[in-house]
Amino acid sequence: MSEAVAIGVDIGGTRLRAAAVAADGTVVAREASARPAGSGAGGVGGEVVAALEDLVQRLGPDLPVGIGIASLVDRAGRLVEAPNLEVEGFPLRDRVMASLGVPVTVVNDATAACLAEGRVGAATDVADVVLLTVGTGVGGGALVSGELLRGASGVATEFGHVIVADGGRRCPCGNHGCLEAYASGRAVAAVAAEWLAEGRVSPALAREPVIDGEAVTRAAADGDPLATEVVNAAGHWLGVGIASLVNALDPAVVLVGGGAGQAMQRWLLPAARAAAESRIIGRRRRPVPSIAPAALGDDAGVVGAALLAFEETPA
Amino acid sequence: MSEAVAIGVDIGGTRLRAAAVAADGTVVAREASARPAGSGAGGVGGEVVAALEDLVQRLGPDLPVGIGIASLVDRAGRLVEAPNLEVEGFPLRDRVMASLGVPVTVVNDATAACLAEGRVGAATDVADVVLLTVGTGVGGGALVSGELLRGASGVATEFGHVIVADGGRRCPCGNHGCLEAYASGRAVAAVAAEWLAEGRVSPALAREPVIDGEAVTRAAADGDPLATEVVNAAGHWLGVGIASLVNALDPAVVLVGGGAGQAMQRWLLPAARAAAESRIIGRRRRPVPSIAPAALGDDAGVVGAALLAFEETPA
Repeated sequence: MSEAVAIGVDIGGTRLRAAAVAADGTVVAREASARPAGSGAGGVGGEVVAALEDLVQRLGPDLPVGIGIASLVDRAGRLVEAPNLEVEGFPLRDRVMASLGVPVTVVNDATAACLAEGRVGAATDVADVVLLTVGTGVGGGALVSGELLRGASGVATEFGHVIVADGGRRCPCGNHGCLEAYASGRAVAAVAAEWLAEGRVSPALAREPVIDGEAVTRAAADGDPLATEVVNAAGHWLGVGIASLVNALDPAVVLVGGGAGQAMQRWLLPAARAAAESRIIGRRRRPVPSIAPAALGDDAGVVGAALLAFEETPA
Repeated sequence: MSEAVAIGVDIGGTRLRAAAVAADGTVVAREASARPAGSGAGGVGGEVVAALEDLVQRLGPDLPVGIGIASLVDRAGRLVEAPNLEVEGFPLRDRVMASLGVPVTVVNDATAACLAEGRVGAATDVADVVLLTVGTGVGGGALVSGELLRGASGVATEFGHVIVADGGRRCPCGNHGCLEAYASGRAVAAVAAEWLAEGRVSPALAREPVIDGEAVTRAAADGDPLATEVVNAAGHWLGVGIASLVNALDPAVVLVGGGAGQAMQRWLLPAARAAAESRIIGRRRRPVPSIAPAALGDDAGVVGAALLAFEETPA
């Protein structure tokens, strides 16, 4: 028998990525495609599934498949709710499984990334891990005693919706004061735009055609005081959320991944560490977890999804 | 061989309680004593251990012992930090084990209570459980996939120190804005006292010689508007903390126990449910956990400690 391989798929906002992954986490082959247009409004049921199946067919049609997607996913692989997608209740696992005739596992994308980091990434052989992903939103995953924290319904580790400032900034989820409303790329852009609208001045941001998280990071890298204050504030709130998670879960390590790029190392992590470390219970008398960057970058989603397919597929 | 029995001990602020408990959670015999005076300032090392050992000797000197205590407890049974007790680093498990010559397990008291509720109490046969105890402080425990959430160091589930309002009310832990600073008996008393100091009027509280959590509850039961507002606010913050925990842990049920008495059913639980239910991610499209009272009352600590002794003692 040849070496065991599984397919991992990461359904992102604009792209589908897939990889054939060995049991040790090595990526054997890759495929990717643009996410089909019109894939909102129930579109996961149509074009996206077809595109996903096309990637899988190219990589290995008889292999178990793991899928990560930015959605609440229940234990039956149904999409419970996804921001900006009208996919509620869509039985993604059953649809793909029926079509491909192979075992299929579906999880939240940050949950998949956490498994990858814990098995073959920045927290290899660490039993208790918290991962946050900071990108457009804030995602989460956790390992407890070496196993993914899935929860009763399967929708655990929505760490972007831990409340850091009740009644505060409005979150896309409809709540106010969630971590995601303070520490995401979307939040960084919104705060910068609000401060500019209030009359504060940022020469660097004035040159940007669109104020998004990347534009604010560029401005901060140029030394722009307003942009720097915005990203430091995001890091502060990230640290507040991390402190709550450390007090609740007591991980050995907290990893931060996602698409924040250079903002992560320069501003987010230092500010998060400063905020978290002064808020962790018993911090002078117990091991305080390191707050470290994730290691696997864009591969975390596909590798984690494939590793979950291995772990959940009967040998 | 006779039926298996273990000893559970609950080291409370003013009393030591102990019970001989069968494997099904039935209390076979009880003992209790006042907590020795002078047990702060390292006193756990002396009088408290002696008193504890005396209770155990009376119940069954050769049985495994589980101990619950209101302290951060590490996986080696050391007291990491306890409010109002100078016990940092005290090796309680090793000291009692060396003295009694039986297997000894030490955990946080709310962690013990959660195990009891999950095995033989309000969440029997529920795999994923969050428990909060509301008394002088706010404690926590959780079951994840049927197992106690202990964390890397053993100090997990400090749910009283999940941050609900960063920078807000000062908590005994030294942080600002912890759940315990808003929803504990101590917090209720402090808020009432502050409002009175600001000139607000409460005829019912004016009759109380001491403003503590019980006095505020009595005043609320008398229909006093200020006292009612105080306990409802505590319930609101309890619900905010519960929402964060549900978004992070996705339990099937949230239990609330502790010493809050009639305040629990009349004000805390209704206000907590209202606040939590509007803050749970995906709440319209996934099962939302019930928020229910714990069942075991004062027995939860001793029963849970004994059940943990069973689970951690090799057969």
